Amino acid sequence: MSFNSFGHLFRVTTWGESHGPALGATIDGCPPGVTLSAADIQPWLDKRKPGQNRFTTQRREADEVEILSGVYEGKTTGTPIQLMIRNTDQRSKDYSEISKTFRPGHADITYYQKYGIRDPRGGGRSSARETAARVAAGAVARQVLAQLLPDVSVIGYMVQMGKRGIERARFDWDAIGGNPFWSPDAETADLWAADLDALRKDGNSVGAVIEVTARGMPAGLGAPVYAKLDSDLAMAMMTINAVKGVEIGAGFGAAALTGVENADEIRMQDGGPVYGSNHAGGVLGGISTGQDVVVRFAVKPTSSILTPRASVTMDGEDTDVVTKGRHDPCVGIRAVPVGEAMMACVLLDHLLLHRAQMGEGTRGRIG
Amino acid sequence: MSFNSFGHLFRVTTWGESHGPALGATIDGCPPGVTLSAADIQPWLDKRKPGQNRFTTQRREADEVEILSGVYEGKTTGTPIQLMIRNTDQRSKDYSEISKTFRPGHADITYYQKYGIRDPRGGGRSSARETAARVAAGAVARQVLAQLLPDVSVIGYMVQMGKRGIERARFDWDAIGGNPFWSPDAETADLWAADLDALRKDGNSVGAVIEVTARGMPAGLGAPVYAKLDSDLAMAMMTINAVKGVEIGAGFGAAALTGVENADEIRMQDGGPVYGSNHAGGVLGGISTGQDVVVRFAVKPTSSILTPRASVTMDGEDTDVVTKGRHDPCVGIRAVPVGEAMMACVLLDHLLLHRAQMGEGTRGRIG
Amino acid sequence: MSFNSFGHLFRVTTWGESHGPALGATIDGCPPGVTLSAADIQPWLDKRKPGQNRFTTQRREADEVEILSGVYEGKTTGTPIQLMIRNTDQRSKDYSEISKTFRPGHADITYYQKYGIRDPRGGGRSSARETAARVAAGAVARQVLAQLLPDVSVIGYMVQMGKRGIERARFDWDAIGGNPFWSPDAETADLWAADLDALRKDGNSVGAVIEVTARGMPAGLGAPVYAKLDSDLAMAMMTINAVKGVEIGAGFGAAALTGVENADEIRMQDGGPVYGSNHAGGVLGGISTGQDVVVRFAVKPTSSILTPRASVTMDGEDTDVVTKGRHDPCVGIRAVPVGEAMMACVLLDHLLLHRAQMGEGTRGRIG
Amino acid sequence: MSFNSFGHLFRVTTWGESHGPALGATIDGCPPGVTLSAADIQPWLDKRKPGQNRFTTQRREADEVEILSGVYEGKTTGTPIQLMIRNTDQRSKDYSEISKTFRPGHADITYYQKYGIRDPRGGGRSSARETAARVAAGAVARQVLAQLLPDVSVIGYMVQMGKRGIERARFDWDAIGGNPFWSPDAETADLWAADLDALRKDGNSVGAVIEVTARGMPAGLGAPVYAKLDSDLAMAMMTINAVKGVEIGAGFGAAALTGVENADEIRMQDGGPVYGSNHAGGVLGGISTGQDVVVRFAVKPTSSILTPRASVTMDGEDTDVVTKGRHDPCVGIRAVPVGEAMMACVLLDHLLLHRAQMGEGTRGRIG
Repeated sequence: MSFNSFGHLFRVTTWGESHGPALGATIDGCPPGVTLSAADIQPWLDKRKPGQNRFTTQRREADEVEILSGVYEGKTTGTPIQLMIRNTDQRSKDYSEISKTFRPGHADITYYQKYGIRDPRGGGRSSARETAARVAAGAVARQVLAQLLPDVSVIGYMVQMGKRGIERARFDWDAIGGNPFWSPDAETADLWAADLDALRKDGNSVGAVIEVTARGMPAGLGAPVYAKLDSDLAMAMMTINAVKGVEIGAGFGAAALTGVENADEIRMQDGGPVYGSNHAGGVLGGISTGQDVVVRFAVKPTSSILTPRASVTMDGEDTDVVTKGRHDPCVGIRAVPVGEAMMACVLLDHLLLHRAQMGEGTRGRIG
Repeated sequence: MSFNSFGHLFRVTTWGESHGPALGATIDGCPPGVTLSAADIQPWLDKRKPGQNRFTTQRREADEVEILSGVYEGKTTGTPIQLMIRNTDQRSKDYSEISKTFRPGHADITYYQKYGIRDPRGGGRSSARETAARVAAGAVARQVLAQLLPDVSVIGYMVQMGKRGIERARFDWDAIGGNPFWSPDAETADLWAADLDALRKDGNSVGAVIEVTARGMPAGLGAPVYAKLDSDLAMAMMTINAVKGVEIGAGFGAAALTGVENADEIRMQDGGPVYGSNHAGGVLGGISTGQDVVVRFAVKPTSSILTPRASVTMDGEDTDVVTKGRHDPCVGIRAVPVGEAMMACVLLDHLLLHRAQMGEGTRGRIG
Repeated sequence: MSFNSFGHLFRVTTWGESHGPALGATIDGCPPGVTLSAADIQPWLDKRKPGQNRFTTQRREADEVEILSGVYEGKTTGTPIQLMIRNTDQRSKDYSEISKTFRPGHADITYYQKYGIRDPRGGGRSSARETAARVAAGAVARQVLAQLLPDVSVIGYMVQMGKRGIERARFDWDAIGGNPFWSPDAETADLWAADLDALRKDGNSVGAVIEVTARGMPAGLGAPVYAKLDSDLAMAMMTINAVKGVEIGAGFGAAALTGVENADEIRMQDGGPVYGSNHAGGVLGGISTGQDVVVRFAVKPTSSILTPRASVTMDGEDTDVVTKGRHDPCVGIRAVPVGEAMMACVLLDHLLLHRAQMGEGTRGRIG
Repeated sequence: MSFNSFGHLFRVTTWGESHGPALGATIDGCPPGVTLSAADIQPWLDKRKPGQNRFTTQRREADEVEILSGVYEGKTTGTPIQLMIRNTDQRSKDYSEISKTFRPGHADITYYQKYGIRDPRGGGRSSARETAARVAAGAVARQVLAQLLPDVSVIGYMVQMGKRGIERARFDWDAIGGNPFWSPDAETADLWAADLDALRKDGNSVGAVIEVTARGMPAGLGAPVYAKLDSDLAMAMMTINAVKGVEIGAGFGAAALTGVENADEIRMQDGGPVYGSNHAGGVLGGISTGQDVVVRFAVKPTSSILTPRASVTMDGEDTDVVTKGRHDPCVGIRAVPVGEAMMACVLLDHLLLHRAQMGEGTRGRIG
């Protein structure tokens, strides 16, 4: 059971509310002997941290991680790793007026209906602030992957904002770090900047599509039939706040293809099988093919907007809600490092599952 | 851990290969006292059964289910329910020639690379035949839901085949059972029939998009943060063979919307909150709102086609593969009852999770 | 969650009732490439089978196992293994008169109170017949262990029946198979035979203590703090019908020792650590030391006896119950192969857990 | 999977080392709306706290718990509860000299063999200090039980120290809190005090047996076959440091009884079934009968003693170990509140499991 945990063997339980004293991640099942310090985690948290440019919320959080357990003299010990991030910028008064009002598009109403109680300060548990814990856990997964699967790299980037997508012909891995949108297409990034400035001025927001790619993958990770690499990735991405869709490889586009078009043909090359295309997104039958694993997820527009929307109160009164405060006009931007973190965790988890059943390495050789 | 199981509390483990003696589902955690017999399950299996019209494979399987345990005098006892379906039409010779060849788009190659061994007869464990066990389990879930949440109904239907989608303006619940595509739009169904006849003649196949809707939902099912109703649905659908994408509500379309457009506004009506739209697909923060839960998934075109595609053998030789035998030109058709089954299982599972933590009913009242 | 499953990674779900059509075990997570056929399993089932001598129930069950999935051409494929045993000797009429009466010491009353329904035929799910499925699963675990840890052997034997225990000075591994009690002390076995003949004549029964030892163990299996090798063994043994206590190594005897007496001193010998005693039972801090793992469990006397005992009916009437039918006067005898099976499953499960986190082999070398 | 977690639905993950910055428990699945503050937890921690009398270690830990999440305005919210206890009295130098030496009877050697790395400061993760986190979690479980099952009370006490057991005829519930041994027999407590003073003077230690009883139990908690109430209790108790045996009701004593003696006869009384004895320990077929649930566990003598014992070093040298520092001469004393905590957690967990499958209340009525 896993209300607040994910992963089969590399098991991450996140805890904490937006405006409580702290939040964090409890990691169980981490292999021992892996180099780990707060300095290995912090850069990934900084990548997600708000307030870094005009396109993300101006809430200021230090997001400094403390390692409370599971590391001795700079190495993991194989025991649980507790990662704690103190909440420092808790302007609870921003939220006080809406403690009895349900913000449309937020979990306020469903948490209340389910539990009969909710922490209204900054969205409580349902705040996207929870994703800081994921990013911290993902940084740990990256450290382990760097040791166990050094060829693997995980990188996320935005491929669509609102109605405007990137131009695949201009895709440049090196462009990703060079703009505030993690766009692999610098020209589109410039257009998004203009789009988003206009939306912010209007008190509006917009959705996005993020793609996360794992390169340097070995074949053989994943498992039939309910611990598939792709179904675990789908679940992992869908748990991120505001995500409404997930696809692998050709994804929904595959529905419009014929079998002849969709087939990823294979030929031997340099002593191994090489694929002519990657409609599969690097996964066949739930198991990695050795191609890049390519996942995309759709993020809905931020629900916290300045334009009034109809809603109701706990007392059953109609009302109109304007969400003031500090909010991201496009939460998709800060979802990029979160998607990367989830991918890193899932890959490591499946590596451990694979080792459990199979021992080290894959079993079947071709040629 | 769950290589071959899904569900937190209503836990289904499927087993069996396409051409082994039998396949089935072991169900643990079913509530006791629920009416259940093979006759309650058989109609749903018949809905999925091949060979019922010219658009599905002509393989003939009786798909008769036997209940081996967990039922006494027509009622569930609360102990494990074993559902077994004998395989009767196993033409292994159809597959013998490709036991050393990897069919493009199939799991042949990844199973072999991972395990070093695979059952090549009809795809073995990776065959879509496994979904018969899901449909049987889903029928049990439906029986329980009928008793515990009698207002809930789950219905699936095809909304796109190849490049052609249904016309939402012509959506008619009553049309769904009246055509071989489970289409809610009879006119589009006629066009799909012509499309598919042409593709079959070409030895080709095509993808599809299936939508599954749960109506009559209560608010409050689901849980943060990693046992969300929508993330569990995403995982459940993504585990179905050939599925490459899953979305909830507006899904990928939400990425193109603004916050103003995407907001599902709320007003009090008849003593409760009523939503003006359902971009959320019935789920906010991982918890049901009481609106219809709407999930869509994309099915890739059948990989087994008569057009030769490049591939390799276990011995590392290049080859061209033509997949003869009896295959569905659009596996999306038979995926409809499978998607329904997965939805029914997930809803029941979340009802049980909810009762565990909350007792019966939801906690928070509005108004 | 695991109502009817055990094991973290080598996961066994048993199903079936005493007098239903069949019972069995669904095994998930088995490594691939392991030799397995029904002939590998049958000898262990035969060891547990009733009716083999005058000290066990005269119920006649063929207990023939069928492998329905997960094996191809004599090797495991890594997919779920379904083991089915048909029930053939179902004399339901033996039980019909007590369908409304609760037999003292049986689960009749608690199943009814919990579920409101129970299968009264032969105890239904609570029958010790369920342990046939464990023995079948244990035989699979033994096949895998034979390949992955060939030095390990698992053997069970009776060390106490009623008030009479074996004489440790006469302990002889070779004696175990030579008497109907699996006693390592042949002289005590003769005395038990006389004891049990007398008890049967009186319509009475008696309890026993079983010891199971794993020899040839590697160091390093197990894990802190809640997946300890010894806590998993304790759970596994306590799930066996009629078991009321479990202990490791010195067990309850350790309570009476001082720290000086209880210490297992260590010295280097032949390049590795060697222990001067084994009060720990081969486990320290939940992890194997490399010594023999020694577990004992206490089995209560058979509750089904010919002497009338006071009880009540479903309707709330007082009654006296005499349990006729075919019952073991000492269920401890047939619990021996069941205890062995549970030990084999737990050891394999922990080997897989170890490989997951650590890869192959242990990490720390001494000397 | 659960290296460091226990519980199916009320799921507790403990983390932290003896001499790290902090330790704690992450609790998932707690019902919402339950009154909870640090003040509700602290008394139970104080009961376990060292240094309260001359019979426990003189290590001084404040053991002050902070609630970092999951509680809002004094009520649980249904989201994860993080309980943190800072380590304040870390005299690492006490342990430095033995960082390369394995203390006999400790997990030093097995942790090293398994992981290749261990935190030697105070035993690291294998320290009994971990049990503070269990006691904190148990206090939360008690708060929930007080609301959901107000008739249930859980109380632990020592029934044997070394060779000396209590006199059952003098059993007095009210005596338990009146002596440093939590003994229900004050006279025996006086004798234990003398025994223990002598042992301490000798640099020796001693084992003990603890009994934990749940009174006021409802019938129907528990489940067949692998989530039995008694098997979960056995596992829970066996995970406590130094525990070597667990038994329910008559336990190992049942092995020496006949079926006639062991039968707990039943009669109707005041409209319900009443048992004439409780050899079963309140559990039949893994499900509670409504009688007291009675569990006993054996604690081995403290391995940290002043008498030199033979051991080896990491480098493979023979050595003799004397464990100086501050240690409990009988760890059984401080195991009493730990056993209570585990019982409380298991009972709550099973209540939640029961509600999941059954809804509120039990199903079958007698009379």
